[in-house]
Amino acid sequence: MPEPGLREIREAAVRIAPLATHTPAITSEGLDRITGARLFFKCENFQRTGSFKIRGASNAILQLSDEGAARGVITHSSGNHASAVACAAQHRGIRADIVMPDNTPMVKRETTEMFGGVIHFCASTLEARETTMNAIRRESGATLIHPYDNPHVIAGQGTVALELVEDVSDLDVVLAPVSGGGLLSGCAIAATSLKPGIRVIGAEPAMADDAARSFRSGNLEPALPGHTTIADGLRATLCERTLGIIRHHVSDILTVDEAAIIEAMKLLWRYLKIIIEPSATVPFAVLMANQRAFEGQRIGLVLSGGNVDLDRLPWQS
Amino acid sequence: MPEPGLREIREAAVRIAPLATHTPAITSEGLDRITGARLFFKCENFQRTGSFKIRGASNAILQLSDEGAARGVITHSSGNHASAVACAAQHRGIRADIVMPDNTPMVKRETTEMFGGVIHFCASTLEARETTMNAIRRESGATLIHPYDNPHVIAGQGTVALELVEDVSDLDVVLAPVSGGGLLSGCAIAATSLKPGIRVIGAEPAMADDAARSFRSGNLEPALPGHTTIADGLRATLCERTLGIIRHHVSDILTVDEAAIIEAMKLLWRYLKIIIEPSATVPFAVLMANQRAFEGQRIGLVLSGGNVDLDRLPWQS
Repeated sequence: MPEPGLREIREAAVRIAPLATHTPAITSEGLDRITGARLFFKCENFQRTGSFKIRGASNAILQLSDEGAARGVITHSSGNHASAVACAAQHRGIRADIVMPDNTPMVKRETTEMFGGVIHFCASTLEARETTMNAIRRESGATLIHPYDNPHVIAGQGTVALELVEDVSDLDVVLAPVSGGGLLSGCAIAATSLKPGIRVIGAEPAMADDAARSFRSGNLEPALPGHTTIADGLRATLCERTLGIIRHHVSDILTVDEAAIIEAMKLLWRYLKIIIEPSATVPFAVLMANQRAFEGQRIGLVLSGGNVDLDRLPWQS
Repeated sequence: MPEPGLREIREAAVRIAPLATHTPAITSEGLDRITGARLFFKCENFQRTGSFKIRGASNAILQLSDEGAARGVITHSSGNHASAVACAAQHRGIRADIVMPDNTPMVKRETTEMFGGVIHFCASTLEARETTMNAIRRESGATLIHPYDNPHVIAGQGTVALELVEDVSDLDVVLAPVSGGGLLSGCAIAATSLKPGIRVIGAEPAMADDAARSFRSGNLEPALPGHTTIADGLRATLCERTLGIIRHHVSDILTVDEAAIIEAMKLLWRYLKIIIEPSATVPFAVLMANQRAFEGQRIGLVLSGGNVDLDRLPWQS
């Protein structure tokens, strides 16, 4: 399947409309004052299932043939993609098998089960995950809904920037978090197609900086062993497909350290009065760490999701 | 000054429009499913200064004569009314003196100072507060902006329900928290005037149930000594003015225990993905504790504010 374009993203927006919310872009006088820029926060924390992931998952699942859909869908995820696939499958009336590492937090299991997803636990290794997935697929013939290495998923995620750039006039920059690169790829295609000259910048934790390194080298660089980040949604690595799109459409990928992510999260909670997860705060952390570069500009920031363990917040040791 | 009516509330809405936000009423499929009712949450946490208090404070301060305004305003508050008065005074370009108990949390001092309020600390007794206030007023001639015993303040708070009842069709019930009774009074006048037959119900912590007892007896009942509540915005007691309005326009005042308030807060944070303070969760706690009585109805709940100490959440011991 070829790289999706603006046309596929517009088609995705129509297709997923019954299932995905057109989320608001909110502003804050206080944060504008602090940063010296004009900020527009795209609230995917208010999205169904609590993150943007429903956009891509539903765009893929709604395009399955009836015959393919009847065999169900399968994915592996411990996070937001899991509940998104379960929700989109439930909407289509088909089965969703979700392979999860057995150390997945209870709240994420519950959300996936709430949408009728059938969970299969496995050890938290790549090998255990593949073995479990393949065993299920051999039996059911279910279609894999990859979290980002899938053009329908990328087109679905692109609807975030489609809405943002159409709702907010004259944006200079769109800042989005990057993990596997589905969101950043889709947003970069949408934003640069709608508004040539706009800069789309990826935001990544320094402790999970494979995308920044891959962006510079042009090759898929592996994650560094022993590194981890509080931004638990940003631990995946790019694939050839997303690296290609990002190298073509994205202006830069900037990284920030863990302390900056936590500080940004607290500021956003305090000023915006909304609940967003650590991963969603990385674009604002990047902005704060590079304030001069963004001064006086109109900036759209993608707040990717709001699924947080409320019993233990990152600034509480 | 007589009791305000719908006309005064409509005039307040026009007067305060440059300063107060028309806040959204949001919904949640998940919470509708849990409660069996159709819920509309009026998000005063997104209001300027983080609570509804700016509505009443600005309605009062904008009606001062130029001569009166030139002498400044004064109030006593350790909470949301303090920053609201400071903000409205700053907007009018006049001085605001704020008397605060010296045990006021740092975050609330900072917010008031951010809006240019001049803080005077005193011991946290009624007597110390009165002495401090009177000394300042003798010198400056500043006008007292009482947090609720003031018809302009009550009319301003009433714009919450004006917006809610006009934005959401066919509400059966409005649930609002009650402390000194300014918000509940204003909302009850607005809602029952706009939609005769609507029931307006006050929500109060059982640990600060003076309003519920006063509502039943018809007399101002004092707070019970030694009782306190996590809902720190709901510790004030009614005055003759608010008791009179509430007895006339409010259907009932229901109370809930502390555990129910904390549980409600956690549920609201999880499902709505917004930050609201403990006081703001009391209406939903009342709804959960009386689910049968509200089943199948369309209910507006006033989320009064979002100023929370994020370092220590109520469900974290």
